[in-house]
Amino acid sequence: MGTKGEGNRQRIIDAADNLFYRRGYNQTSFQDISDATGIPRGNFYYYFKTKDEILDAVVSSRVAEFLAMLKQYEEDTADARERLLLFSNMLYHNREDIIQSGCPIGSLSSELAKDDDELQEISRQVFLLLREWLRKQFETLGLPNADELAMDLLARIQGTSVMACTFKDADFIERSHRDIKEWINLKTMN
Amino acid sequence: MGTKGEGNRQRIIDAADNLFYRRGYNQTSFQDISDATGIPRGNFYYYFKTKDEILDAVVSSRVAEFLAMLKQYEEDTADARERLLLFSNMLYHNREDIIQSGCPIGSLSSELAKDDDELQEISRQVFLLLREWLRKQFETLGLPNADELAMDLLARIQGTSVMACTFKDADFIERSHRDIKEWINLKTMN
Repeated sequence: MGTKGEGNRQRIIDAADNLFYRRGYNQTSFQDISDATGIPRGNFYYYFKTKDEILDAVVSSRVAEFLAMLKQYEEDTADARERLLLFSNMLYHNREDIIQSGCPIGSLSSELAKDDDELQEISRQVFLLLREWLRKQFETLGLPNADELAMDLLARIQGTSVMACTFKDADFIERSHRDIKEWINLKTMN
Repeated sequence: MGTKGEGNRQRIIDAADNLFYRRGYNQTSFQDISDATGIPRGNFYYYFKTKDEILDAVVSSRVAEFLAMLKQYEEDTADARERLLLFSNMLYHNREDIIQSGCPIGSLSSELAKDDDELQEISRQVFLLLREWLRKQFETLGLPNADELAMDLLARIQGTSVMACTFKDADFIERSHRDIKEWINLKTMN
């Protein structure tokens, strides 16, 4: 695929990613993505035959972005506790988006839980990546229940996102973020 | 409205409630509800003109159900801490449904966050009721930050639901439910 083809493909993925987040997967049509990109629907099928294929590409793109972010945390600090704290900052940095549309990962997972198993498995990939990375950080700190702590941390972030989005409450995110950092410090204390 | 009319109306609400939960609001059509109830679409419009009206009736019905449940807890025990523990048991009792389709309240709220403001306000009603009731229980126990504790408890239940549903993990619900009960006891200790 030439440079222009790659460019178009990426534009479709980026537009779909944003629409899936802002409107939901099921509420986004091929036509919506075509409108958002300016790429005619005809040309479109050259890159993706079905919306499921677009979802797959969107999730792969999110996995790549998260991988880069986690790698950045690893470069920023060698201290696993610090890495966990950096991870939790996501909640604060993205608070405006979360209040508007929820967590992009959690809300996609919640939506697709009501769809077929294949779509659920695709959407689960980002959570699998995060869970595994968090597990590793807790493990590095010598904690035996590292996977449980990884799940607990993800659950706290998800719970905060659902309630903050429901009540459009930025203060709740700030407070909850402080509590989560306290929890991380408590759990990883030597 | 006669008894038969009331019966039909309630059948539509019950079927819609279940479909909104299992498939999502946006993925449920008038035709789906007609199929589920056996009531022809023509008769249907006699009770509800739009899907928004059905949503409104479904949420009102859920509010009524939760009110009855909370009233039951109040009759079961005069101890506010015990009431909070009873409330948290919902997570355990509904674990099979949560793993399959998430929390009915949280997943509807997440879905409608991506819709217009009016639908969001409708879906928020159940959370408002639960938040207020929880606040009252914490307040009865003399806790000054009762509303914050109410939000924290709802967030914990929502976070548990999202992650348990994502990973289809009943054990996580059981463990998280134990942690939540511990948290309630800790927060309400004199």
